[in-house]
Amino acid sequence: MDSNQTQWGSTAWHLLSLVRAQTPLIQCITNFVSMDIVANTLLSAGASPAMLHAVEELRDFTPGVHALYVNVGTLSPSWLPAMTTAAQICNTHRTPWVLDPVAANASAFRFEACRELLRLKPTVVRGNASEIIALSLDSAEPNSSASKGVDSVHESTTAVEAAKLLARTSGAIVAVSGATDIVTDGNRVVGAHNGVAMMQKVTATGCSVTALIAAFVAVDKTHALDAAVSALAVFGVAAELGMKMAKGPASLRMHLIDALYGLDEAALHSHVNITSLC
Amino acid sequence: MDSNQTQWGSTAWHLLSLVRAQTPLIQCITNFVSMDIVANTLLSAGASPAMLHAVEELRDFTPGVHALYVNVGTLSPSWLPAMTTAAQICNTHRTPWVLDPVAANASAFRFEACRELLRLKPTVVRGNASEIIALSLDSAEPNSSASKGVDSVHESTTAVEAAKLLARTSGAIVAVSGATDIVTDGNRVVGAHNGVAMMQKVTATGCSVTALIAAFVAVDKTHALDAAVSALAVFGVAAELGMKMAKGPASLRMHLIDALYGLDEAALHSHVNITSLC
Amino acid sequence: MDSNQTQWGSTAWHLLSLVRAQTPLIQCITNFVSMDIVANTLLSAGASPAMLHAVEELRDFTPGVHALYVNVGTLSPSWLPAMTTAAQICNTHRTPWVLDPVAANASAFRFEACRELLRLKPTVVRGNASEIIALSLDSAEPNSSASKGVDSVHESTTAVEAAKLLARTSGAIVAVSGATDIVTDGNRVVGAHNGVAMMQKVTATGCSVTALIAAFVAVDKTHALDAAVSALAVFGVAAELGMKMAKGPASLRMHLIDALYGLDEAALHSHVNITSLC
Repeated sequence: MDSNQTQWGSTAWHLLSLVRAQTPLIQCITNFVSMDIVANTLLSAGASPAMLHAVEELRDFTPGVHALYVNVGTLSPSWLPAMTTAAQICNTHRTPWVLDPVAANASAFRFEACRELLRLKPTVVRGNASEIIALSLDSAEPNSSASKGVDSVHESTTAVEAAKLLARTSGAIVAVSGATDIVTDGNRVVGAHNGVAMMQKVTATGCSVTALIAAFVAVDKTHALDAAVSALAVFGVAAELGMKMAKGPASLRMHLIDALYGLDEAALHSHVNITSLC
Repeated sequence: MDSNQTQWGSTAWHLLSLVRAQTPLIQCITNFVSMDIVANTLLSAGASPAMLHAVEELRDFTPGVHALYVNVGTLSPSWLPAMTTAAQICNTHRTPWVLDPVAANASAFRFEACRELLRLKPTVVRGNASEIIALSLDSAEPNSSASKGVDSVHESTTAVEAAKLLARTSGAIVAVSGATDIVTDGNRVVGAHNGVAMMQKVTATGCSVTALIAAFVAVDKTHALDAAVSALAVFGVAAELGMKMAKGPASLRMHLIDALYGLDEAALHSHVNITSLC
Repeated sequence: MDSNQTQWGSTAWHLLSLVRAQTPLIQCITNFVSMDIVANTLLSAGASPAMLHAVEELRDFTPGVHALYVNVGTLSPSWLPAMTTAAQICNTHRTPWVLDPVAANASAFRFEACRELLRLKPTVVRGNASEIIALSLDSAEPNSSASKGVDSVHESTTAVEAAKLLARTSGAIVAVSGATDIVTDGNRVVGAHNGVAMMQKVTATGCSVTALIAAFVAVDKTHALDAAVSALAVFGVAAELGMKMAKGPASLRMHLIDALYGLDEAALHSHVNITSLC
């Protein structure tokens, strides 16, 4: 193991330990499909999830959270004001917030919503390659139907330039999930190689890792790139450990969350696989 | 094993293989309770689920899907326009769509919504015996409270005539879940005998198999009866395989989805149990 | 084992047996995060859950249910009229209903909603210590952000006086979850000691046990305190049995529900741990 891996292992372990020690309160305005697994992922990592999305509650509640997670997976017009208002409150309070632009290109309505959210300066944006490419092009024109679903039709490595462009124009750390996860601030590009292919057969694993990024950013908001990389690596390592016992997607889901809960320093260090790509 | 079973096994395997090879995009406008298990069922079968229900997105998104799944389980007035609009778009594009009229008789509001959806010519309707009997009678009069819940108080075999009547009047393939699942086009009646009783103790397994029917119809829309029967058999066989390892409803749910993911041709052929009832 | 434990074991077993025999229909107006696990908990216990929340359906449906469960976890203004209307219908029909005031103190909006629901005379209220203390103070002033999340910052035993006060002013049986669960009618106080700490790492276990209380109250509405204590004990024993096989929060969730389904008289009697506190 080279010194770079050892350093990343230490960073990831440090941040996970902070999450476990501080139990940061993470407000989640996320899609219906993901709510159960997102909450369980955050609890297993040591954070305290709060699924709360009524506009009427945000002025009282959001100032007290340690990070906000916004996910547009099952977006409808009535939810958008809560997302933008909560993001604005976070910005006022210098609270980090993380955006998951699920299926950004599914419709003009959704694309415009994602653009509006991007203008509110998320700390981190995580999507698959198709989503990040669409947002980087900043075009409301829906692509072919092949890219309309929630499952990516592009590989994350082909999205590196798109991610860098989006990071520069939005000011966010941009993460692209794929066989290799890519994280960039617009200049530096880091590859997080942990994870297993079967995660794509478990719904809302992408949503869950974005929520985990929010928990990691909550405990170190001044190093959002490191936090995003670490969260992706921790989730990926948990998936690798879970995969050893899994017999299919449903048992993988269970063992992944168990493994995230039980992850210790030695296992994290021996599995973490992060490289600088440029 | 008689030649009829061999033929059904081949049909079911062929359609499952097509789903795995083509990963059809299935739009799901379904109830909140079912979203997680429906998405995971579709992913495990090889399809690509998209939980997307905002009216504002349908013109952009729905024309590109390979099938639509509509489920009224947690219906509220604001959801109905999305259901009817999406169904109309599917009809325009000759895209198959499948209806699950959960608890059709729970209220006059719900019953009218189901009738409105039936007039939009679903390709397949799947319900339990109580739901199909209520819809076949086409009466807005709610029955006794005994039939108001989501759990059926009738056996599927008692619903054969109701299913045939509903198939003829609606033009849909009608499937009735029960100890034996019944599928009919109004004339032909096929019985799918796979499955285990404990599935009734796992929420939204009915919703999930209807979603699977949508995936099967997506890859062979000209043979909707065969597709519906095959999906019911595949799901039922996965339940039987899962039941061998289950210790209760929650582990059955996990093992069922794992088994659906891993189902191979030999296991399907040796377990499939489908008969012509008339 | 003292005779008091034997008596509580008999009571809890009697009520669980009634739930299994009568399969009471439990209407649940609950938060999105909890819907899956709440429905599966009720099914595993033998009850029949119905997730149905549209105001348009309540006049037809709610009069036929055996208990109502209201949970404000993901409250928004459009859901509140359904909650209050359903509660009123239950009151008219002398149907028991149970309130889970999740994160009651998260916002003035939510606090007012909980107060409005409390005025509609729930049969049982179950919350964590922070929630019950906030409601007993009857103050719309949000506390410090430390108590705003869904996870309690108080121990249940410190909430005994608050629970008694709330029981007297509301007329409800009040249950407070914690390391020891407390149940009181304002005078009598019973402690239910079953359960495992890891349940706090599984989302919506609190919501689930409140739903189970609704099922137990449905089969014996004249002894709501006994029903609440029994449901808490049964759920806690299932957690203890599940914990023996669990390797983390996700497998605990699965084994808990399996254990609830399979719970037999001997296991319940040998594990139940209930004491009179005053």
